[in-house]
Amino acid sequence: MTLAELDTPSLILERSILERNAATMTARARALGVSLRPHMKAAKSADVAKIALQGNFGGITVSTLKEAEYFAAAGISDIVYAVSIVPAKLARIAALMRAGVDLTVLTDRIDVARTLSARCVELGIEIGVLIEIDSGEQRSGLTPTCDELIELGTMLHNSPGVTLRGVLTHAGHSYACRSIEAIEEVAERERADAVGAAQRLRSAGLPCPVVSVGSTPTAVHARHLEGVTELRCGVYMFGDVFQSEIHSCGRGDLAVSVLATVIGHREDLDCALIDAGALALSKDRSTAADGLPEDVGFGYVTDATGSERIKGMRVSRVYQEHGLLECDGSFPFDRLPIGARVRVFPNHVCLTAAMYDAYQVIDGGRKVIASWPRVNGW
Amino acid sequence: MTLAELDTPSLILERSILERNAATMTARARALGVSLRPHMKAAKSADVAKIALQGNFGGITVSTLKEAEYFAAAGISDIVYAVSIVPAKLARIAALMRAGVDLTVLTDRIDVARTLSARCVELGIEIGVLIEIDSGEQRSGLTPTCDELIELGTMLHNSPGVTLRGVLTHAGHSYACRSIEAIEEVAERERADAVGAAQRLRSAGLPCPVVSVGSTPTAVHARHLEGVTELRCGVYMFGDVFQSEIHSCGRGDLAVSVLATVIGHREDLDCALIDAGALALSKDRSTAADGLPEDVGFGYVTDATGSERIKGMRVSRVYQEHGLLECDGSFPFDRLPIGARVRVFPNHVCLTAAMYDAYQVIDGGRKVIASWPRVNGW
Repeated sequence: MTLAELDTPSLILERSILERNAATMTARARALGVSLRPHMKAAKSADVAKIALQGNFGGITVSTLKEAEYFAAAGISDIVYAVSIVPAKLARIAALMRAGVDLTVLTDRIDVARTLSARCVELGIEIGVLIEIDSGEQRSGLTPTCDELIELGTMLHNSPGVTLRGVLTHAGHSYACRSIEAIEEVAERERADAVGAAQRLRSAGLPCPVVSVGSTPTAVHARHLEGVTELRCGVYMFGDVFQSEIHSCGRGDLAVSVLATVIGHREDLDCALIDAGALALSKDRSTAADGLPEDVGFGYVTDATGSERIKGMRVSRVYQEHGLLECDGSFPFDRLPIGARVRVFPNHVCLTAAMYDAYQVIDGGRKVIASWPRVNGW
Repeated sequence: MTLAELDTPSLILERSILERNAATMTARARALGVSLRPHMKAAKSADVAKIALQGNFGGITVSTLKEAEYFAAAGISDIVYAVSIVPAKLARIAALMRAGVDLTVLTDRIDVARTLSARCVELGIEIGVLIEIDSGEQRSGLTPTCDELIELGTMLHNSPGVTLRGVLTHAGHSYACRSIEAIEEVAERERADAVGAAQRLRSAGLPCPVVSVGSTPTAVHARHLEGVTELRCGVYMFGDVFQSEIHSCGRGDLAVSVLATVIGHREDLDCALIDAGALALSKDRSTAADGLPEDVGFGYVTDATGSERIKGMRVSRVYQEHGLLECDGSFPFDRLPIGARVRVFPNHVCLTAAMYDAYQVIDGGRKVIASWPRVNGW
């Protein structure tokens, strides 16, 4: 099978770029003196995980229990479920733990920790817990200096069914940075807040073996990670247009794109239509944010090989199954006749990839060398 | 199983509302003197199709070949694939036709019609073709007064492998209307352009049995549909917040919502977190458009029964798996403790539903009476 024979829209993964991105981050974690625990929320693929784990210790991060179940079935046994736990989700977690998976959860709440302990005792499991720290994202987590930190740590340490593993933070607000200097500052605060929280726990006589940080921009630009033990990041494997615009990668580092077919011409409106719309690309508009170099609409467009952008072309509008192509200057209808194929590089690969059951994998050519399944849903 | 026992996020479908919406549109089509060919691109479910087809002739509209294959396997044999055909997609269509499905395609291009004819002859099929008309949406279609209309109609009528079935238009620009009067005008242009194109074909001695129009807003508000034979619309089955804001339905008519669990409190920021984020809700922001009554963020939030909105609550921000809840006045943390469940009514149900493999069906209560699978992808 070649790219020309694939049905469209299809999700294309360039293995050589994925391998290069994975190796670069693995080397970077080693240079920073931390363990890399790749976040699989973007990739959701056991085949991708194998590549991301090369040269690393074998643990991963996930964002859903379905991912945890899928990766456990694929033989990965050290998993951090990095979304605040609620006790109702423990039954599925207990099933995984009984099957031999070391699954770690996170919380920032004393009442949850209390219920967690009671339910884990009932379920006959002992679960590792990380305390989530807010290092400026203002989403979830305790501030590193608050009183509850010690109270929560003490309760986790002293309660049955749960084991205090350490602290975790996510500097997602690095996505709002527009310069490398700004990302470096966010990375330093992420590091300092996590390490500071860990030191407070240790000073109170509590164990804190894990100090976990991570977001792709801060992982790429942190000046150092002294005191941190673990780095979690995920989108670095694939890259996307938004990440390229906030200095996480270059446009040549984007491993995932959507193959689409030209299905209509509007000579009168100087635009064309492809069969990739809101479902095939997602409605993410992250490159429309202030201060970024280029708003690429719903993705920028290259020829079918993925190597050459066509006249600044972008998907400027999406309908459920139609995407509208516009470009700089007059539209090259001769170059893109009906039936021609293009590649769309998405703004936010996590959201685009989630619309597909599988990656069609290529390796520097037109031949599709494999189809790698993805796990979607919850 | 009850709502309280479902894993979250889950996609909830209230059957009684679906049945009422379907019956209302069926009655409306009958009153307008046209056949209703429901568009299944929102529902993508054979169980929903059964309800939508009650009292109608049995034909449907689809937006992907995967939908066509799925509904054909479910016994539906009259299908319009309502996205411009390209010849590369004919192999899958031929397989359906050989299995007895009457599949109609659309085009607005003479070169495509020529290739279509040649390929259909090769494949040994005779396919029905509708000519797409642009009635103002400016997406695809010929203008009803252009010369190519007669040329294309003549070619389709005289070529082997293809049969001219008629004309089709979609007034998707009705979504930009902000008053019922404006929608009535768009509906009248949609009707008049389709009927005008049909009359031109007939005056040229060409057959034009089908005159197909459709979008939910114009279907709801068209003053009359004289000359039209078929109405295609889809989102009316479920409704969504955006449709309620452009007068297609009321908020009490929304059949689909997302069940989510409160997973975090931020007393310091007066907001809370749920386990439904960008993947569970989609990133559609259609209620942010100018001139609408309320921007509900990524959806508005009710109690777990779906009946009572909580303090103007909305999902004001999404991360991949987190949604941030905000409301009017101070956040009711006592009413929504960690583990509490809410329902989120999405802006655009087609995009939200596409994130799920199945509907969890309820019928006026808390009991989940069925799980209805959906077909996603291409």
